[in-house]
Amino acid sequence: MKIGIYGYGNLGKGVERNIALNPDMELAGVFTRRDPAGIKTLTGAPVYEAERVTEFENRLDAVVICGGSATDLPEMTPELARHFNVVDSFDTHAKVPEHFAKVDEAAFRTTHTALISCGWDPGLFSLARLYMSAALPEGKDYTFWGRGVSQGHSDAIRRIPGVKDARQYTVPVQEAVDRVRAGEQPELTTRQKHLRECYVTLKEGADAAAVEKQIKEMPNYFADYDTTVTFISEEEMRRDHSRLPHGGQVIRSGMTGEGNRHVMEFSLQLDSNPEFTASVLLACARAVVRMNGRGVFGCKTMLDVAPADLSILEGAELRKKLL
Amino acid sequence: MKIGIYGYGNLGKGVERNIALNPDMELAGVFTRRDPAGIKTLTGAPVYEAERVTEFENRLDAVVICGGSATDLPEMTPELARHFNVVDSFDTHAKVPEHFAKVDEAAFRTTHTALISCGWDPGLFSLARLYMSAALPEGKDYTFWGRGVSQGHSDAIRRIPGVKDARQYTVPVQEAVDRVRAGEQPELTTRQKHLRECYVTLKEGADAAAVEKQIKEMPNYFADYDTTVTFISEEEMRRDHSRLPHGGQVIRSGMTGEGNRHVMEFSLQLDSNPEFTASVLLACARAVVRMNGRGVFGCKTMLDVAPADLSILEGAELRKKLL
Repeated sequence: MKIGIYGYGNLGKGVERNIALNPDMELAGVFTRRDPAGIKTLTGAPVYEAERVTEFENRLDAVVICGGSATDLPEMTPELARHFNVVDSFDTHAKVPEHFAKVDEAAFRTTHTALISCGWDPGLFSLARLYMSAALPEGKDYTFWGRGVSQGHSDAIRRIPGVKDARQYTVPVQEAVDRVRAGEQPELTTRQKHLRECYVTLKEGADAAAVEKQIKEMPNYFADYDTTVTFISEEEMRRDHSRLPHGGQVIRSGMTGEGNRHVMEFSLQLDSNPEFTASVLLACARAVVRMNGRGVFGCKTMLDVAPADLSILEGAELRKKLL
Repeated sequence: MKIGIYGYGNLGKGVERNIALNPDMELAGVFTRRDPAGIKTLTGAPVYEAERVTEFENRLDAVVICGGSATDLPEMTPELARHFNVVDSFDTHAKVPEHFAKVDEAAFRTTHTALISCGWDPGLFSLARLYMSAALPEGKDYTFWGRGVSQGHSDAIRRIPGVKDARQYTVPVQEAVDRVRAGEQPELTTRQKHLRECYVTLKEGADAAAVEKQIKEMPNYFADYDTTVTFISEEEMRRDHSRLPHGGQVIRSGMTGEGNRHVMEFSLQLDSNPEFTASVLLACARAVVRMNGRGVFGCKTMLDVAPADLSILEGAELRKKLL
């Protein structure tokens, strides 16, 4: 299947790198809003101006849309779903219904298939929550994120005057994880679930105490958390904080019968958040092509995808090797 | 939906107990090969002779077949799939293709839907292996079982002359789990992955040393493992080993890009293996009814089931709450 990548940041580059791990896929091209002349792709794949993507109608089996959820995807996905089968990683939970409806209309009308909110959360973690709640209807689940870099929180720190660079790690509170894993079903406040560790490089002459105060009191982002701020040099930032690790876990405990307790857990430890997300997006691209081939049109999420559609292996082989 | 339970051992009782946790389900009856007059169900559900099940054609939405994989299910599932939508927990991995083919023919011809090999392994663990291999095509996965009671191994010990009762726990080797979890991809022998702990009550006058030797040298079951044998009294057996806990984990590590390592893990800790399996079977019964309603006929496994079909919640609600 011929894959197009639309958007060429960290995520798009991850998709490009991962194509080679999927022998049934071929990268047809990268589409970017920047000047293609200035871009050299990692694998030598051709680069085209974003507007030219419609020239590729009927020549791409699926387009993996690698834009941001805030402003890119709400525009890009419905627009591209008019011309292609598409996959995106839209992750603004509260706006999923609205995004879903717009993409569904565009895709359904043009007999395309779209899979939105693919990745690990939303994505594999959503699947874990679904399977766990189906298997243990009476129970409670918890999602912990980290230890990992939150780009949104890092950006929020960078916008503070005097800050040159920043990296924010979301860290689950181990005591909370242990209690949940032991089958307790505690009520946990925001503060009891996660810590926020901030590493900040200041501009010359900036007031460290003032920056630290601004971070710790920032509403929504930090005020509800135990937050630590560590000031480091540019050199330390480059050396120790240039990767984008992430991960986390979904844990559900529940009861059956007369007092039998069960605990289910799904966890991820990722060296590179964008590369792993990209790898999931490619499995989703495979599913979207197959579903479209069976006449399943419109917008779907991973919750609607038969797991076998994600795999390169075929039914009998899957049953033999994985069942 | 109206559910029938066919077979009334530990698993059938688990299904009966769990029905109440699923408000969209109702238990229509229990079918048994024993004399119904001698059976009082846990919930007061009516009991019928197994042969009478065909009288219930068109009155049951799905039948959950609770028989053993060795001799019961290979007969029961194809036969019942001629009259009902069915779910079973067939777990003889090597014979899945044969079982699948027989059930598929029976179900497809009569426009029924059958889901075989449901539960946690095969079942949720199969799904974990599939999602993980799709997300990380270049990698290696490991399945560890336990700490939990293996009924097959317990039975094998009970057949040794001089043994009154026995309980065998399969225990993962912690060092192996830790290495896999750390992202190593070790080659592990059978012995390096699991230990076998046996608790045995002897008949009067039995030769403990001879029994221990027979256990430890038993081919397939124990010879390839580090096995411990502990002799205990009948009273201790009752007090400390009357439950059927189990669990385990599937762990996959793999690489993307230039040296980014990712580790995925799905784990279960179950107080009661049959009750948890029963709970999964009921979610599968829901899916089988829905798939049948959409005209999906024949034999399927959990690898073919869109996750949303397992949940009592409907699409928009799932997207809102779980995505």
